[in-house]
Amino acid sequence: MIITLLTDFGTADSYVAELKGVLLSRTTDITLVDISHELPPGDIRAGQYLLSRAWSHFPRGTIHIAVVDPGVGTERRAVAAESGGHRFLAPDNGLLSFLPQDTRFASLPIPKSAAPTFHGRDVFAPAAAALATSSSIESLGTMITDPYCSPLPTPRIDGLTLVGEVIYVDRFGTLVSNIAGNAVQAGVRIRVEGTDVGSLSRTFRDVARGALVTFVGSGGTVEIAVRDGSAARMLGVGVGAEVRA
Amino acid sequence: MIITLLTDFGTADSYVAELKGVLLSRTTDITLVDISHELPPGDIRAGQYLLSRAWSHFPRGTIHIAVVDPGVGTERRAVAAESGGHRFLAPDNGLLSFLPQDTRFASLPIPKSAAPTFHGRDVFAPAAAALATSSSIESLGTMITDPYCSPLPTPRIDGLTLVGEVIYVDRFGTLVSNIAGNAVQAGVRIRVEGTDVGSLSRTFRDVARGALVTFVGSGGTVEIAVRDGSAARMLGVGVGAEVRA
Amino acid sequence: MIITLLTDFGTADSYVAELKGVLLSRTTDITLVDISHELPPGDIRAGQYLLSRAWSHFPRGTIHIAVVDPGVGTERRAVAAESGGHRFLAPDNGLLSFLPQDTRFASLPIPKSAAPTFHGRDVFAPAAAALATSSSIESLGTMITDPYCSPLPTPRIDGLTLVGEVIYVDRFGTLVSNIAGNAVQAGVRIRVEGTDVGSLSRTFRDVARGALVTFVGSGGTVEIAVRDGSAARMLGVGVGAEVRA
Repeated sequence: MIITLLTDFGTADSYVAELKGVLLSRTTDITLVDISHELPPGDIRAGQYLLSRAWSHFPRGTIHIAVVDPGVGTERRAVAAESGGHRFLAPDNGLLSFLPQDTRFASLPIPKSAAPTFHGRDVFAPAAAALATSSSIESLGTMITDPYCSPLPTPRIDGLTLVGEVIYVDRFGTLVSNIAGNAVQAGVRIRVEGTDVGSLSRTFRDVARGALVTFVGSGGTVEIAVRDGSAARMLGVGVGAEVRA
Repeated sequence: MIITLLTDFGTADSYVAELKGVLLSRTTDITLVDISHELPPGDIRAGQYLLSRAWSHFPRGTIHIAVVDPGVGTERRAVAAESGGHRFLAPDNGLLSFLPQDTRFASLPIPKSAAPTFHGRDVFAPAAAALATSSSIESLGTMITDPYCSPLPTPRIDGLTLVGEVIYVDRFGTLVSNIAGNAVQAGVRIRVEGTDVGSLSRTFRDVARGALVTFVGSGGTVEIAVRDGSAARMLGVGVGAEVRA
Repeated sequence: MIITLLTDFGTADSYVAELKGVLLSRTTDITLVDISHELPPGDIRAGQYLLSRAWSHFPRGTIHIAVVDPGVGTERRAVAAESGGHRFLAPDNGLLSFLPQDTRFASLPIPKSAAPTFHGRDVFAPAAAALATSSSIESLGTMITDPYCSPLPTPRIDGLTLVGEVIYVDRFGTLVSNIAGNAVQAGVRIRVEGTDVGSLSRTFRDVARGALVTFVGSGGTVEIAVRDGSAARMLGVGVGAEVRA
């Protein structure tokens, strides 16, 4: 059984390890994979973007724990979800909004003993361990039909132009847009906040060092990068910047 | 068999991987879990704090390797320890001082071939592999009764007030004190270096964004945080700052 | 089966996890070990240094995936290699130049479906999974005899002096040279860009806090460090700085 972890806990403190200790105390024969623990604290949308990219590369049966949880310890619900043979544990704050309409959701009870600031360890890890040892999401809580939904923005059409936006900036400073690569016609110029960054190339080396380049990224959408540099820095933009194609 | 790792090696270089390679070359069927490799170089007390929190969340039988070792290659001893069904490998510099009185300690021989600057790979990893493949701590070295002991500070009582201190600052800038949460009476005001930070709340969202909040943290002691911010930065304090409750 | 990973992807984004998801979807019973993901983007020589240190600590049969790939998506070849019972997957850009002369290399086909910017996930991971499930490197591609070779520099002899250089700087600011420790005679003074840093000590504590110290490092070559500090910062030098012994 594979269990993935996505959090904003960082890796300097013991938080991730405590969560893993709980998982390993309650299961046998699991493989733990870190997706990322370096999300900006509380950045639910970045978490949603990374999990929406990563989850489907794992085999059916994988359990994904996602904890970006600025409302931890409040009335916000904790949920388990099931879709496409994968299962998910997360706070009910929109982190799972990328999942398809027919996803099934259960609301998890919060044990009184759970630390109000650490549901990752005290709520989500025990629930994941239960799923890993044959429980169904039905057996963990109450099925619900109204999960909090806050999907990533989608592009709009303006005449012949697609108008999207930057939805993520990776560690290289590459701007990831929400415009599907296969929706862009050959030769169309891409603009970021009004700056023409050229038409779609294939990869970094198609341009000179330090030059802007745009291509269909490995997540399937239009990206804007600088070869051996940072597009975010060169263009002075970040998440939310307008991208036209 | 689970083996955890806590070091100040960082994750940019190959040091942690070399240690893991040695473990995997000498054992089969082990699960490796990183507690942290991002301790400030040589910070034995931060290492002690993190390991004291994390270890008991792992199942009995787990082996914990802890290498924060500014005296590597000198006369300081290397030790194996056993307590509560867990085993530990560490330099004898106080890193394991959180373990209970009845912990058993063995002093490990240092092979002549060990690199004087890398006992993690050449002393502790081979010893952990031996423990993982059925050796006892007795068989690894000489039992000792005088491990170097340098426990984290404990609070003192001043009239009706508990006077403790900050013993750790996490990546969010949250100040972790050594005052047990269940020792603080309801309504008591908490003060950090003279600044009143309020009485105990439950969690971050109990206050407005950017406000100070104090609560019983997931390690069981009083913590002082800023919602969506850093208490260390706002108060300008760190490890050693006085906390009164 | 053990699979190690060395990349410049960082750990903040989902890239490493996507690669691991592909591996875990196509194999069973593998142990994944991260060597490093924090190489400076595109730094092939740092990657070569780390992999040349780490690989031989792993058991025979280990598969090593190394992706520092500024030419991804261009005509540069992708290769599989076999040496000493270990197998390697990497771009053909010099990253594997540390391997011995009798290493066998195969050139891998690039599937049309591979993202031109992410061969780690779409070329190297599937190839590693094939090797892990009993394929030979011959079966993966075409054997070649002209891999791109760009080895790390070796020292020259100037009279009675060895003249080498700094080939890596670790996270502590320690300068790692390419001068073999056992080639340096006792008492010889070591110089870094003209600064005398003393003769070889054994370890950090042989000098006072904040002082320069030189010793034979855990990789077997002469290193220059500052106890509880950074030699790179104190001396103002980095990779390429001349080291005389």
